[in-house]
Amino acid sequence: MSLTTTAQPTPRTQPTRTIAFVAYPGLTLLDLVGPLQVFSALQSLRDGFRVVVAGERLRVMGTDTPLDVVPDSTFAYTTDPYAVVVPGGLVSTLSAMADQRLLDGIRRVAANAEVVGSVCTGSLLLGAAGLLDGRRATTHWMFRDLLTAFGATPVAERWVEDGPYLTAAGVSAGIDMALHLVSRLTDEQTAREIQLLIEYDPQPPFGGIDWGTVDIESHAPVAQRFLTEALTGHPDLLALLRG
Amino acid sequence: MSLTTTAQPTPRTQPTRTIAFVAYPGLTLLDLVGPLQVFSALQSLRDGFRVVVAGERLRVMGTDTPLDVVPDSTFAYTTDPYAVVVPGGLVSTLSAMADQRLLDGIRRVAANAEVVGSVCTGSLLLGAAGLLDGRRATTHWMFRDLLTAFGATPVAERWVEDGPYLTAAGVSAGIDMALHLVSRLTDEQTAREIQLLIEYDPQPPFGGIDWGTVDIESHAPVAQRFLTEALTGHPDLLALLRG
Repeated sequence: MSLTTTAQPTPRTQPTRTIAFVAYPGLTLLDLVGPLQVFSALQSLRDGFRVVVAGERLRVMGTDTPLDVVPDSTFAYTTDPYAVVVPGGLVSTLSAMADQRLLDGIRRVAANAEVVGSVCTGSLLLGAAGLLDGRRATTHWMFRDLLTAFGATPVAERWVEDGPYLTAAGVSAGIDMALHLVSRLTDEQTAREIQLLIEYDPQPPFGGIDWGTVDIESHAPVAQRFLTEALTGHPDLLALLRG
Repeated sequence: MSLTTTAQPTPRTQPTRTIAFVAYPGLTLLDLVGPLQVFSALQSLRDGFRVVVAGERLRVMGTDTPLDVVPDSTFAYTTDPYAVVVPGGLVSTLSAMADQRLLDGIRRVAANAEVVGSVCTGSLLLGAAGLLDGRRATTHWMFRDLLTAFGATPVAERWVEDGPYLTAAGVSAGIDMALHLVSRLTDEQTAREIQLLIEYDPQPPFGGIDWGTVDIESHAPVAQRFLTEALTGHPDLLALLRG
């Protein structure tokens, strides 16, 4: 395998495709940065792709880490991207399910997209925006059941495709989902080049997650506590999600 | 396995340990954010840990993605952290090997640290700062040989420990290294809890990297080109690194 170091021309009939990431205050940073790094590599390796991070405003925003971030575009200026990716988070994201300005922004950016993606609880924002009704979708394992409140069917997979919707499981799943999406938009060879560039040859020190030892049911009260904290000011939405 | 949702007290004799990440313009964002997310989770799950991102100044800086970032501390204010992690990058990081203000900042922050870590080509900055002489270390596969110019012995492993130095391979290796470091600073159970929280159960769509198909030698001219571009104004350092 060899790394292509100069961008390869795409056929002239193919216009530049914009991959737009949605940013909002308090998001889980790795949800955003995993796939953002993958698509930034795609932009540098191949012609025909442009990556933007769109927020409501061009303003510094906090994340769930000590690092603040600044988007390089706004929802209003992100017109007709080819793909949209909405990252998730914990209490801030659960609260954002009631943020009509953010949901309007997501609906606007996603309106004509060929691919509407999410990482982790980002799919709950897609659901709250009314986009996942009747769709199969996934999210962070701890909040998977909440998808049903938005008419979606929760699926326990690393990523789930249904029509234009491409939802990934928790946090780090965004990297796998992004490499898959790159292979869809280009080819397996390009996805493998990017994987090599970011040296994504995972070696978790204690192996993968042993799901047999994870009692998801026992975490339901924890998830409910986060949800209650996030939506105290929105009793109707809270009631809907509590089912 | 169950997620601890309230911070567990550590013994009173153990003072708070600061984990300091070094930020500088043009870094590869996932190098920083992978381990930053892991340690931010540690800070929220366990008492006794504090995470900061230190730059030369509290100022917005670009990365190798469209997302700009803002550190929450400075080198001058990051006194005696327990651990330091230096992320890498491509041309910006190779250029930074000649940035004496940054190298001074790294030496200052690392001076009394128990753990001095790096991700990807961040180890070349540790090397340029004179910290890896006589040590075993690793870096991004494409630049591994450059470590010898700083007196280090390159090792092709996911992460390498030698005394206080803990260097990781390219980009995504920072996640594995960080989980390993968490287990060192706490225990395996805590590292596994964080792994579950960030749902780090990797499923690269085409499997791991097949190193048998990667011809590292053939990439040497590419690495040399990046190096030449990065160090045009620093012929002595360039000559040293070209060997």
